[in-house]
This record gives sequence, C-alpha cells and structure tokens, in this order.
Amino acid sequence: MGASSNAFYAQSGGVTAVINASACGVLETARQHPAKIGKVFAGRDGIIGALTEDLIDTSAESDAAIAALRHTPSGAFGSCRYKLKGLKENKAQYERLIDVFRAHDIRYFFYNGGGDSADTCHKVSQLSDHMGFPIQAIHIPKTVDNDLPITDTCPGFGSVAKYIAISTREASYDVRSMSRTSTKVFVIEVMGRHAGWIAAAGGLASDANNDIPVVILFPEVEFNQERFLARVKANVEKYDYCSVVVSEGARWPDGKFLAEQGTRDAFGHAQLGGAAPVVANMIKDALGYKYHWAVADYLQRSARHIASKTDVEQAYALGKAAVEMAVAGENAIMPTIVRTSDEPYTWEIGKAALDEVANVEKKMPVEFISEDGYGITDSCRRYLSPLISGEDYPPYENGLPVYVTLKNKAVEKKLKTKFKI
Amino acid sequence: MGASSNAFYAQSGGVTAVINASACGVLETARQHPAKIGKVFAGRDGIIGALTEDLIDTSAESDAAIAALRHTPSGAFGSCRYKLKGLKENKAQYERLIDVFRAHDIRYFFYNGGGDSADTCHKVSQLSDHMGFPIQAIHIPKTVDNDLPITDTCPGFGSVAKYIAISTREASYDVRSMSRTSTKVFVIEVMGRHAGWIAAAGGLASDANNDIPVVILFPEVEFNQERFLARVKANVEKYDYCSVVVSEGARWPDGKFLAEQGTRDAFGHAQLGGAAPVVANMIKDALGYKYHWAVADYLQRSARHIASKTDVEQAYALGKAAVEMAVAGENAIMPTIVRTSDEPYTWEIGKAALDEVANVEKKMPVEFISEDGYGITDSCRRYLSPLISGEDYPPYENGLPVYVTLKNKAVEKKLKTKFKI
Repeated sequence: MGASSNAFYAQSGGVTAVINASACGVLETARQHPAKIGKVFAGRDGIIGALTEDLIDTSAESDAAIAALRHTPSGAFGSCRYKLKGLKENKAQYERLIDVFRAHDIRYFFYNGGGDSADTCHKVSQLSDHMGFPIQAIHIPKTVDNDLPITDTCPGFGSVAKYIAISTREASYDVRSMSRTSTKVFVIEVMGRHAGWIAAAGGLASDANNDIPVVILFPEVEFNQERFLARVKANVEKYDYCSVVVSEGARWPDGKFLAEQGTRDAFGHAQLGGAAPVVANMIKDALGYKYHWAVADYLQRSARHIASKTDVEQAYALGKAAVEMAVAGENAIMPTIVRTSDEPYTWEIGKAALDEVANVEKKMPVEFISEDGYGITDSCRRYLSPLISGEDYPPYENGLPVYVTLKNKAVEKKLKTKFKI
Repeated sequence: MGASSNAFYAQSGGVTAVINASACGVLETARQHPAKIGKVFAGRDGIIGALTEDLIDTSAESDAAIAALRHTPSGAFGSCRYKLKGLKENKAQYERLIDVFRAHDIRYFFYNGGGDSADTCHKVSQLSDHMGFPIQAIHIPKTVDNDLPITDTCPGFGSVAKYIAISTREASYDVRSMSRTSTKVFVIEVMGRHAGWIAAAGGLASDANNDIPVVILFPEVEFNQERFLARVKANVEKYDYCSVVVSEGARWPDGKFLAEQGTRDAFGHAQLGGAAPVVANMIKDALGYKYHWAVADYLQRSARHIASKTDVEQAYALGKAAVEMAVAGENAIMPTIVRTSDEPYTWEIGKAALDEVANVEKKMPVEFISEDGYGITDSCRRYLSPLISGEDYPPYENGLPVYVTLKNKAVEKKLKTKFKI
C-alpha cells in the first residue's frame, strides 16, 4: 500500500435524475484528496463490476465530463439489481471482492443506492473485521422511494416529487379546459409500490392559488371503490372535472394491486396493464365520464430537465460528504440529510451507522394522509414543499439537454480467474 | 356601432402548452388598438360561449394576468369540441351567433384551434356575405397534431415535440443504466392518431452525441410484428437495450389500432388500454426482455414547464398578427408561419385564405420516415429541430410553476332567449 489507495464507487438499484450528481460529488471530492485517494474505479453495472473485475477508470474522464455528471440523469456507470448474500451463505462472493480490491489496491468502497444496497454496503464494511481486509465502506443514499431511515429524505425523491407535482398541475389545467364537452377525469399513475411518498407529491399540485380537485390513491389506504367513485363524482359535480393520482402500489382490500384487476390479452394471459387504465375504466363504467390517463413510469425518475435544485444539491453534498468521511477514517456509515428547519428550509449533513440503516424501511407517517384518505395534510406539505424547491436546469443544445456519456474506459484486469454472476 | 367595436376570442379543440400564449398575443395587441377594438369578449368554452351568450369580459383582467397567459398552459377560457353545422343544415346556429354579436357589438371574431375550428371560423367569416352581418373572422392556428395546411407548423406542436424528444432521451439513459440485470426495453406511447409528427420527435432523442437505439412505430407504416421484433432484438443484441416510441395511431395491417388488440377486463369488456402495454407485452412474450412502458397522454401537451421557446414565440406572434390583420380590415384568413431558412432558422408571418385551410389535412411527408420505416431522415430532423429550439421557463414559487387562473368575469347577458347546445 502506497501513500494513497484507490477507491471503488458504484451505483445500485433503480437510477434517478440525480444519482450522477452524487457520483460527481464523490469524484470531484476524491480528486481534491490525492494524498489519501489515488484513483476512483467505478464498478460497471454496480457491484457486478467489482465481482467480475469489470472496473472503469474514472481518471480517464476530463474534469468537464465529471462536472457534467451533475446535470445528467441515469447511472453513468451502469447499475444493477443484485444483492450480496450473507457472509455465511456465500463466502466466495466476499473472497472475490477482497481479491479484486487487493489486486487494484482499493481501500475505500462507496456504494450509492437504496435499502438493499445499504445492506450490501454494510456487509462489505464488515470485511475488515470478519476477513481481515482493511476497507472503509460508506453508503450514499439514493432512492426515489424515499424509504431509507434516519435521513430526512433520499436523493432522487425530491426530483420525482417535483415532476409529479408539476405534471399533475399541468394536466389538471388541461382537463379543466376540456371538461365542458370532453374529458372530465384525468388519471396519472405514479411509482411507489410500497409507500405513497410519490403519490403524496401529486397533492402539491393544488394549493391556495390553484384550487384543483386531486384525489390520491395511496398504497397505505385500502381501496374502497364505492367511496372513491362517490368522491370523484362529488368533485366533478362541484368543479366539472377531477384529477386522480394513483400509486402503482394501490391495492384492493384483498391485497391485490389495482393494476392486477383481471385484465387479459387476446390469448387470455393476465396482463399487468397499469393501475391508471383500471381506475379510468372504472370511472367511465360507473359514472360515464370521459377520461384520459397517463403512466409516467421512467419519465418521472429520469426527468433531469425539471429536477429539484434542493435534490441536486443534496445528492452532490452526500457524495462529497461520503468521501470526506472516508478520508477522515470512517467506516460502515451513511451520510444523511438532517433537516434543521422547515421554514426557511435549512439542512445539514449528518451520519448514520449502517447497521441501523440496512433492512429498515421508512414508512410514510399516517398523519401525512388526510382523514378521508384521499389527500395530504399540512404537515405533509411542510415536509414535501422544500424538497421540490428550486430549479436546476441542464444546459441545452438544439432544443435538447446536453447530457454526458462517459468514455467508461476499462481498467486492465489483474486477476486470472473469472467469477460467475 | 361606435368608433370602435368589440371582439370575440375563443379557444377550440384540444388545448396545448402554448394556446394561451396566442390568447396573450390577441389580448395585448387588441389593447393597443382602442380606436378600432373596444373590449375583447372571450367565449366560455369556445364557440359554445358565443351560442349561449356566455361571454367573459377580458377587460376585467389586469395587464399582469394577461401577460401571465404567455407562460400558462391549457385554455384559460375553456375549450370545446363542437363543430358548427353548415349554414344550410342549421341556420338557427348562425342566426343565434348574429344575435349575440349584434347585442354585444362584436365585429371581430378570433377563433383559436385546429382543422375543425378553421372550418367553423370559415363559416363565421361568411356571415357577412350570406347573412348581411358585418364581421371579420380570423383563425389562429393551434394543434399539437401539426396537421393544418400552408403554415409551416402549428403552435402547440413544437412544445409536444420537445417534450417527447427530451423524455425519450432521458428514459433511454435510464434504461441503458438498468439493462445489465433488469429492464432492457422502454416503450413510450405518444399522441397522434392520424399522423406521426409527434412520434417522429422521439427520433430526435438520438443524435451524433447520443447514440440511442430508438425504434418508432408510425401510423403511416403498417405494423409488421415479425420485422418489428427482429429490429428490437437486433438493437438489444448490439446496445443491450432499446427504446420504442409508439404512436397511439399505430395500426395492424387490418387497420385496427395496436391499442385495440383484444385486451379485456374482468367482465370481458374490451378495453382500450394503450398501445404501449400491448407492444411491451409483445416484446416480453416473444423475446423475454424485461420492459417498462409509459403513456405520456396529457402530460405531453400541457408540459409548459419545458415548452419550446420557438413555439411560444410563434404562438404569441400569430395571436398578435391575427389582431393586426383584423384591424387592417382582413376577413376569412389565418396567419401562418412561413419558414424562410432552416439553418439558421428564420421565419416570418404569412397568411392563408380560410377556404384553403378548412378541411384540408397536412400529412407528414413520406420522405421524413427512414426506408426501414422505424426512424426519421435527415430532412425530418432539419424540419423538426428548429421547432423544439430554445427554452422558455415559467416563473416558479415553492418549486412549482406559477400559472394564472383568470377571474373570467361574465358579461351581463342582453338577450332574453336561451340557446340549446
């Protein structure tokens, strides 16, 4: 080991509009600490890149390319859905990691992901204790699901929330214009299989200056068809239109997703066709209203063009903090966002022990959902509003955002063995 | 009739991100011609507002509110889908219009819409000749379908095209990151039942600096399942992922929409579930690739947050020109966009006679579609690229765009009779 060692950085799970901003924070900060950190090797496609010794030499990228990561959505090095087993169940995986880390003089491990990734990172952080290999593992939070514990929010969520709030407002203005002779109900389906964080953001479309009837279908609230239809009907009678935000995780009382509601294709195969068309057809059948529906899907999490400035800044700051914590000798932790005030909104970086983060899912507080189950409360607004605050536009050329695609130059392999994923 | 007469303005058909920018152009320009134009009365919900004497007094709106229309999506006065019958078939409609116009001293008629609306406007323009009522009718083009003749483009289209190009690029970056262990195909469904103008815009996602495999399914090209699947497979084998842009107007050889492909709900009812899930499931069944799909629907046409600056400027300029032409004594015309150069892009305002516009649909040129039927040609890029050029961000507050909702104060009714719609 020389005066400095190398670092490993990888992206994991579903990507977001701002995970590359965290990568930018890691890489720019690492370049400021040459005495401690040599090169940063990125894993191609997450931890798979480490296991297969498929490393990317980020030192081959220009400062300008690294800086452009801040405004580029998606995962610049590729991501993966791959969870390490426990040390006991699959020791070979950990031995392989140690072989790769040793071969490339890697002593810092930065993993950028959600709950499963925090678990992986936690396991890597134990290599030092359990297998005698000196490594510092720091987890960098990222997830549009906003379900990591301890941190006030997770990078990626604020930008999705902003996109859904804006889109719901814009489409509501549209349907309001059309309702006299045409569409009366607009349904938008949003992500969040387990929790209604993203669906809640649709509620921000309506405020003191925008009296928009928005009905939200949360995963946390058992779907009651009769009550729901009555609510939509009441809105249409009052406003002549209604917007519905349905979470992909909305469920029937028997636990089935609305999206599973018996839709079959021409061959009789069950199709998961989305909750939005199911809800829209239900309204049409029962109430006769003309509808339109949208499924935002990847558009919502990749919409860097309208990312939240707060979110971008926090994503960057967490990447930066991860490196600074590593340089200060920390291991087995995750930098967090600590909210110090709602209004004016202020925040600072804190930290959490990985054993308190891994496998803990943060639920949306019940007091964020209005009593009738279809809206958000003031406390929810106070929580969400600062997270979507500010715009951080990417540069444009010919009408399109200029996003960077890195060279992703492979590091020469040093091991003779292959590892099967 | 005093020194000045009043004007009528209404919005018709599907609204867009920029139709209010045309309204802004009309209203601001009319306020500059008090010697000719007294008040501008807007029709509540399009022509229906004229027929039912449901007029809005725009003079009750502040200059600031009118100015804010420029950055507010949707139709501020409400729109309608309502086509006037011919003079012979329903003379009562025209007599009613004349009654209303006379009662409110309306001598200028501005109608802001697409092909059907141009036909309505054309009929109104004939009231002078056929029924002896002096009125000048000017049509202001608007349609995301981009299918009006003579004008180089239609306000509303450029912003949808920009939204689809950006969204396709962003989601493609996303799926590219995920393809190693997860999603390999992303399908986005776009508007355009009769023509592939909007679908073509998805092709702009890929360019010299963004080598993205995009397969476009145009309404103009008969769907060939085998060839399509082979194309997706080839892309995934080369790039490890593929993006598909499917027009809602894509059809099977027998003329059926892909979206109609036999999907049935739990009760056996046929469901129009969207073309995107049909295409996505087809890929999964035949090739086994994991997919994601999105249906942009109203989000694409209401996305004022990422409107094309060119589009906003042209929408405003056409509203302004309509008033100037009216003041100059014109009747039965539509101001148009005349492209004077591709690069650098330059344009000016022209005009077209309404009898050459009404009921004529502009098709997308076949030479805009690549030979294999799945992409766009260079001539298509040259046409589209300037239309999505430039950004024109609305103001924001608390992370959300500040859109205006007008007071829409009703004009006191003067007629004693009602008119049934």
